[in-house]
Amino acid sequence: MSKRVLTPVPLTAERFAPYGDVIQTVGTSDKTMNDARFDRFDDLAKVDIESSDGGHVSISIVKSKTPTTLPHQFDLVERHPMGSQAFIPLSVFVFAVVVAPAGESVDAKDLRAFVSNGSQGINYHRGVWHMPLIATIEGSRFLVVDRAPGEGNVEEVILDQPVILQAF
Amino acid sequence: MSKRVLTPVPLTAERFAPYGDVIQTVGTSDKTMNDARFDRFDDLAKVDIESSDGGHVSISIVKSKTPTTLPHQFDLVERHPMGSQAFIPLSVFVFAVVVAPAGESVDAKDLRAFVSNGSQGINYHRGVWHMPLIATIEGSRFLVVDRAPGEGNVEEVILDQPVILQAF
Repeated sequence: MSKRVLTPVPLTAERFAPYGDVIQTVGTSDKTMNDARFDRFDDLAKVDIESSDGGHVSISIVKSKTPTTLPHQFDLVERHPMGSQAFIPLSVFVFAVVVAPAGESVDAKDLRAFVSNGSQGINYHRGVWHMPLIATIEGSRFLVVDRAPGEGNVEEVILDQPVILQAF
Repeated sequence: MSKRVLTPVPLTAERFAPYGDVIQTVGTSDKTMNDARFDRFDDLAKVDIESSDGGHVSISIVKSKTPTTLPHQFDLVERHPMGSQAFIPLSVFVFAVVVAPAGESVDAKDLRAFVSNGSQGINYHRGVWHMPLIATIEGSRFLVVDRAPGEGNVEEVILDQPVILQAF
């Protein structure tokens, strides 16, 4: 079976717009707070969850235990039908996201790969297909903002062909 | 008028429990994700917002523009009646939080001061009185998870006596 090879391109808000939000500060803001002690970059991502059935928005941390070596081959993608999901690095490090548009089905050919600049986080819109998170550095930590409980909020699909994410 | 002097004590989940959540990883977790590539520290803070009237949970970033020198004197505290509010450092740095229990009124004598260990974030529970955020390092960035729009969701009170937050 042929493999689909993905070379990540730099993550920008424009490129990522079909899939979600880029959580970042660019330049200065025209809003401040607390007597102008801070620049405010407001509402960079809207958290969108299904709150019926006891769901709530939750803040968690995931910490890399077994880093991934690139190139990384995978054949499974997932989506969260009941809510958006944000990952924000808690220190400066780059990471890759691989996504495909929300929809009932997904093909390897629909996947796009992006690499962050070290200070960016992302928010997947509800239902957007994505590669399960990987980290390349042991101990690196991401803040997660998504729906709890997680049970019943993940769908996985095995792709029609394996995918290789190239080094970045 | 006499001043109330606050010396911050180390922030712990136990000490902060009356006011909110500490967002941190301690030790290892008994939960993993993505084939055990990550330790999961789940649901460290529950985001609690009033969603009527068009409110939603929002992710923002604030960036220190004018750092504060300690000791820091202030006489104003605020609370957010329509939702919790989380601040999580996006790199490793310590910061202070000064809080008083939720309630209709607040006195300087009710205030308690805490200092983080550099890797901790916090989530103020809805209605908890707090000193407006300060940072001691220019350019330091906090992720914010709270309710948008912010309009109509802040109450400020001038304290009965000025407060001095000691250096940490």
